[in-house]
Amino acid sequence: MRRLLITGAAGALGSVLRESLKGYADVLRLSDIADMGAAREGEEVVQCDLGDFDAVRGLVDGTDGIVHLGGVSREGAFEAILNANFRGTYHIFEAARQTGKQRVLFASSNHAIGFHEREDRLGKDAPYRADSIYGVSKCYGEIMARYYFDKFGIESVSVRIGSCFPEPRDRRMLATWLSYADFTSLVKAMFDAARTGAAMVYGASDNKEQWWDNGHAAFLGWHPQDSAEGFRAKVEAATPEPDWQDPAVRYHGGSFAAAGHFEDD
Amino acid sequence: MRRLLITGAAGALGSVLRESLKGYADVLRLSDIADMGAAREGEEVVQCDLGDFDAVRGLVDGTDGIVHLGGVSREGAFEAILNANFRGTYHIFEAARQTGKQRVLFASSNHAIGFHEREDRLGKDAPYRADSIYGVSKCYGEIMARYYFDKFGIESVSVRIGSCFPEPRDRRMLATWLSYADFTSLVKAMFDAARTGAAMVYGASDNKEQWWDNGHAAFLGWHPQDSAEGFRAKVEAATPEPDWQDPAVRYHGGSFAAAGHFEDD
Amino acid sequence: MRRLLITGAAGALGSVLRESLKGYADVLRLSDIADMGAAREGEEVVQCDLGDFDAVRGLVDGTDGIVHLGGVSREGAFEAILNANFRGTYHIFEAARQTGKQRVLFASSNHAIGFHEREDRLGKDAPYRADSIYGVSKCYGEIMARYYFDKFGIESVSVRIGSCFPEPRDRRMLATWLSYADFTSLVKAMFDAARTGAAMVYGASDNKEQWWDNGHAAFLGWHPQDSAEGFRAKVEAATPEPDWQDPAVRYHGGSFAAAGHFEDD
Amino acid sequence: MRRLLITGAAGALGSVLRESLKGYADVLRLSDIADMGAAREGEEVVQCDLGDFDAVRGLVDGTDGIVHLGGVSREGAFEAILNANFRGTYHIFEAARQTGKQRVLFASSNHAIGFHEREDRLGKDAPYRADSIYGVSKCYGEIMARYYFDKFGIESVSVRIGSCFPEPRDRRMLATWLSYADFTSLVKAMFDAARTGAAMVYGASDNKEQWWDNGHAAFLGWHPQDSAEGFRAKVEAATPEPDWQDPAVRYHGGSFAAAGHFEDD
Amino acid sequence: MRRLLITGAAGALGSVLRESLKGYADVLRLSDIADMGAAREGEEVVQCDLGDFDAVRGLVDGTDGIVHLGGVSREGAFEAILNANFRGTYHIFEAARQTGKQRVLFASSNHAIGFHEREDRLGKDAPYRADSIYGVSKCYGEIMARYYFDKFGIESVSVRIGSCFPEPRDRRMLATWLSYADFTSLVKAMFDAARTGAAMVYGASDNKEQWWDNGHAAFLGWHPQDSAEGFRAKVEAATPEPDWQDPAVRYHGGSFAAAGHFEDD
Amino acid sequence: MRRLLITGAAGALGSVLRESLKGYADVLRLSDIADMGAAREGEEVVQCDLGDFDAVRGLVDGTDGIVHLGGVSREGAFEAILNANFRGTYHIFEAARQTGKQRVLFASSNHAIGFHEREDRLGKDAPYRADSIYGVSKCYGEIMARYYFDKFGIESVSVRIGSCFPEPRDRRMLATWLSYADFTSLVKAMFDAARTGAAMVYGASDNKEQWWDNGHAAFLGWHPQDSAEGFRAKVEAATPEPDWQDPAVRYHGGSFAAAGHFEDD
Repeated sequence: MRRLLITGAAGALGSVLRESLKGYADVLRLSDIADMGAAREGEEVVQCDLGDFDAVRGLVDGTDGIVHLGGVSREGAFEAILNANFRGTYHIFEAARQTGKQRVLFASSNHAIGFHEREDRLGKDAPYRADSIYGVSKCYGEIMARYYFDKFGIESVSVRIGSCFPEPRDRRMLATWLSYADFTSLVKAMFDAARTGAAMVYGASDNKEQWWDNGHAAFLGWHPQDSAEGFRAKVEAATPEPDWQDPAVRYHGGSFAAAGHFEDD
Repeated sequence: MRRLLITGAAGALGSVLRESLKGYADVLRLSDIADMGAAREGEEVVQCDLGDFDAVRGLVDGTDGIVHLGGVSREGAFEAILNANFRGTYHIFEAARQTGKQRVLFASSNHAIGFHEREDRLGKDAPYRADSIYGVSKCYGEIMARYYFDKFGIESVSVRIGSCFPEPRDRRMLATWLSYADFTSLVKAMFDAARTGAAMVYGASDNKEQWWDNGHAAFLGWHPQDSAEGFRAKVEAATPEPDWQDPAVRYHGGSFAAAGHFEDD
Repeated sequence: MRRLLITGAAGALGSVLRESLKGYADVLRLSDIADMGAAREGEEVVQCDLGDFDAVRGLVDGTDGIVHLGGVSREGAFEAILNANFRGTYHIFEAARQTGKQRVLFASSNHAIGFHEREDRLGKDAPYRADSIYGVSKCYGEIMARYYFDKFGIESVSVRIGSCFPEPRDRRMLATWLSYADFTSLVKAMFDAARTGAAMVYGASDNKEQWWDNGHAAFLGWHPQDSAEGFRAKVEAATPEPDWQDPAVRYHGGSFAAAGHFEDD
Repeated sequence: MRRLLITGAAGALGSVLRESLKGYADVLRLSDIADMGAAREGEEVVQCDLGDFDAVRGLVDGTDGIVHLGGVSREGAFEAILNANFRGTYHIFEAARQTGKQRVLFASSNHAIGFHEREDRLGKDAPYRADSIYGVSKCYGEIMARYYFDKFGIESVSVRIGSCFPEPRDRRMLATWLSYADFTSLVKAMFDAARTGAAMVYGASDNKEQWWDNGHAAFLGWHPQDSAEGFRAKVEAATPEPDWQDPAVRYHGGSFAAAGHFEDD
Repeated sequence: MRRLLITGAAGALGSVLRESLKGYADVLRLSDIADMGAAREGEEVVQCDLGDFDAVRGLVDGTDGIVHLGGVSREGAFEAILNANFRGTYHIFEAARQTGKQRVLFASSNHAIGFHEREDRLGKDAPYRADSIYGVSKCYGEIMARYYFDKFGIESVSVRIGSCFPEPRDRRMLATWLSYADFTSLVKAMFDAARTGAAMVYGASDNKEQWWDNGHAAFLGWHPQDSAEGFRAKVEAATPEPDWQDPAVRYHGGSFAAAGHFEDD
Repeated sequence: MRRLLITGAAGALGSVLRESLKGYADVLRLSDIADMGAAREGEEVVQCDLGDFDAVRGLVDGTDGIVHLGGVSREGAFEAILNANFRGTYHIFEAARQTGKQRVLFASSNHAIGFHEREDRLGKDAPYRADSIYGVSKCYGEIMARYYFDKFGIESVSVRIGSCFPEPRDRRMLATWLSYADFTSLVKAMFDAARTGAAMVYGASDNKEQWWDNGHAAFLGWHPQDSAEGFRAKVEAATPEPDWQDPAVRYHGGSFAAAGHFEDD
């Protein structure tokens, strides 16, 4: 891998990968709409609005792979999500088509399936049940990835990221936590793989509680190594007892699913 | 049904329903960005850009049901589809949430699943396989419909319209044709139903060749009555022999799937 | 068929079959805990408490087939259902095992699966979701039927009766109605069949709205002929507009599912 | 269709199609190892051992479609089946590959799935459960058809023929009967279709009792018109009451499944 | 957890949990129809007939969770099972509804699915195939648990216990064994869980041979730690070679399925 | 196990088992059409053409189990495969039926399912998709195994061997490799099992990349211990970068699937 593009490089996950992927490619091309500081050795830094196609085309051109983290990463105003996530993700795939047919990691989210109930373990075929406009934008990105593979032969992996933080911060994350190390190994696994098609992978560590089944993606050879279990005592001490009827407990999407739920009216 | 809104009323399907639904509701409120002529008895005519939320909110307010046909209805430029289909469909659902929780018919399309192969009969659980940006926008609309039901209790039916024309125009339409009369009866069935949830229905007449299975939606009680078969001789005389390897024959989406397909490079 | 036993013969369905099966068997042996009037030609009348095994054994002995309608046929006190439905159904199967291994029609009910949602069409593999103690007793009867087949080779058909009345009485019955004629033809079909195993059949007429799929039981050759549709205008005129959020509309079991539902607290 | 090859043309089904397909193609090329009489107008008659590849290659060359009925059509000695069915079917597909990539109808049989139980309705995905060496040879032919499609692009339809006779001859055939007219219409449907892939179709008429589900093949537009029901009285009068435990009743394959069954030892 | 009720506390499993759950709750309330000895510190001892509703209501009142082991735990006379298992389990759930909506562990059994064949690995959706009246009572209990959740919001976990003994006692138990420690950790896991719905879990240790798949219940975070493998040599030395045709080997339920099987007549 | 037959004993796998199974049975009866050297202690050596039934019958007679490795083990001329694999495998099963109903290990191959795509993880129910005539012969052997079990009660395990070599030799084998030790433990597991039915097992070691799911066969208690991962660096250094569009990468069958593929014309 000579040149790997990371979008959203100024964000939390982007900053993590900027460190953890150092050396994985000869050059990391880093992009964000926000300031990323100066380029270090083995880096290129390109400030770029994902809503500007010409800029995105230039950004993508000359790279060998794309880690697309850019866009709005939580629930927000529709127009902001429309620009960054809908328009931006299209721009990434279209630019890849026009330049080098690079393989793309699309940072999807568990919020694409956030309205399934906790007792239902989800695999490859779980229907989309977005829990937010943000979640809808992630469904869209996955569908775009599949479309660009079916029609244009652009390979991708959509990672339905659970909760990617330094450590689990609440009880739900005891199941959904994805450690930085496990996310990094997943990025490497998908670019190392001989073929990915338009795969989808759930992004969770090897936690004791498991909500998602990645059996279908075993061909990628990714085996997360971390577990949220070591943080259980700390988390339980710091957070209240859950109520099983609370939509934030009932649904995979947690507070995203609960926010504004009509049955609470 | 007192007041039924039809968006896209200046379009082909909108014009059909303007006639065929006359009398089904006390008032048909007709909307389009294009000119629709003068309102006739039992009609209200409101010119409206679906990309303007305030206008859409006013449009939706006071209605008892929405037939949402508006938007770009074929493959086109991304920005045009982004405005009319992505932004516009969100505006419709959001306006419904804010005003009357009206039941919505979302005019989806077979192009949401257009990259499945002809030999695969598709039912409720067929994964999304959009064959075009237009098709991606239809997947999006269905996911938005599900989201607005799960979170806000807005009922809907997404109709994956096959080929809705006065008569089948090519060999593919011998399987995919939806007559105007059958579309009309489907519209009535979904508004008459006691409950729809966020259902999906394939919109095809009772043709001899069948690609889609509506068994899951039998609770709606819709039974198409027309068949493309009477047009077979005419169609076959007017169109060339198909080639089974042609992507337009291989895939459900026909020419939408074939356009630009990379394996033809 | 020489001698066919009908339990619950004083009840509504029993009285219907008493007439409609006249001549189907040489002798109809009729049983109930209530008075059934005098035996007519081709009939034997035996008053019997299904909770008394010796009586049931005598009742079953010498017959060639059993239509087991007896027991409590609506929600009721647990102890009444325990005696008539739990104890009584066991007695019927056990008596069949001890005497003639007669094929049994078990009158099950849609209330065995009454907590599924209307938008979900149910087939053979729908999990049990009883909506009442009565519904639980019907699940039990089906499981008992399967057990007696697996272990002892007693054949049966469990009929999940929808709404078997002279005509549909409310809007739900436009989907769930089973006409007397169709029920009668089903009884004949199952006794005429070369083999039934421990089959399950949904008991609904050929209504326009369909909630249940009998495809798995097509080997029985039963084709209902009646439809609730002719009663639609009358029913709709006599009953209020449904509310899609009402549990009685949401769930297959209708008012059985709605009664006492905790989310209404 | 200019020239259509029918193998096994001297057999019962071959003789039927020789008549019923008259005029469907400009020329019917008829082949058998047995005598077929003289060629009539629109016919070519070629005596051929399917075990002789050069002969088969010559037979296939110049045709536009193949109806492959040839081979042993009942249980028999392994070596006879090995030559006619295993070697012969390979020869047909390989000759098609070498000459014209003609579409092939492979006359498969219900005996490929004959060890499934009657209560199990079978569709596209029923696992192979051959009931005889003959049945194994039919599984083989279907797998060969799929292989020649996947690797070489030879289209085919494998028809799992039920019981194709002038009329049903026993009680089992009330479910499995395929009328000559329905078989003929199926042959036409598959050659008229724009694309078949390597489809499989169950060959049964529109009988009242149905064991097999052809929903997956609805894209072919084949709708059988005949029914065994008109022969029921005659068949039941002429045949004994079935015993549900008899393997010939229990299994789809009837007497093929029952012959030699070890549990009867 | 302040007060945890254990029914059947004088039985084998009850005695085990009385020890192993010491300290898990502030108070263990122990109940049985048999003598349980004197209460020790942290215990309450209440003799109670599960067939007496008022007694059960008093028993359940004031507790925070229920481990319902009580009832007949092997095949037995119908009337005994009817009282203890059918009536008793209803009493437990109904008392929970009336008092505190306590979460319930229902001690189900592999005998609820005992007539499946060994080669079929069973998961969440395996149809009920009871192998005994005892097994039927366990199906009933699971259905009751689901009913009380759907209608009244009583959470539960039904544990289909394999063979819970100090060590495996025969060859079948090399697959079905559940160690006391693993059962204890499962009890804790289900009461610690934020939500259980009406889950079902197979109760087997981490044995080398596995018949059941608990993937669907991974959200509970239960990971058995013991294995029957260490007892293999001892078990094999003490028990005869199995016969693959023996119903006790063929079916999941072992000797329960074999007892009285009609094909052995 | 007193006497275990190994066919194909002069081949690569046969030679491995000749060593690794030493002592597992009192006597290893070794057979091949080629020279196997002299019998050693605990061995019987019988040269035999699998195409000669009388010879095979003699070979099988007196044994207690059969490891059937014999036949053509790569793509080859149809007639050679017809004799050795089709005729030979029939002879093995038929001889088992006539002599001792010995349990049979049938050496099947991943090439029976070689035309599935890499992104599809395959389990028990994956449809046959042979990638070669050799692969067709393996489908046939599995179907024959099922037939001999259904009709005659001959137990078997069909092992879909991945790549059984001393070490992985190319990048595909990093997923498909089966170590000799793991193959040996599988042979022992299947003969030690109380019952196998007509099971199918995928033969791959515990590699990091996994294409196949053996969950259905967990009842056999086989747990492979080796992994190809230790050979990754060596393999990657010695082999070129894969091209994801290469049929040898796209399909499970690797170069077998790619050879002669029509889309490469």
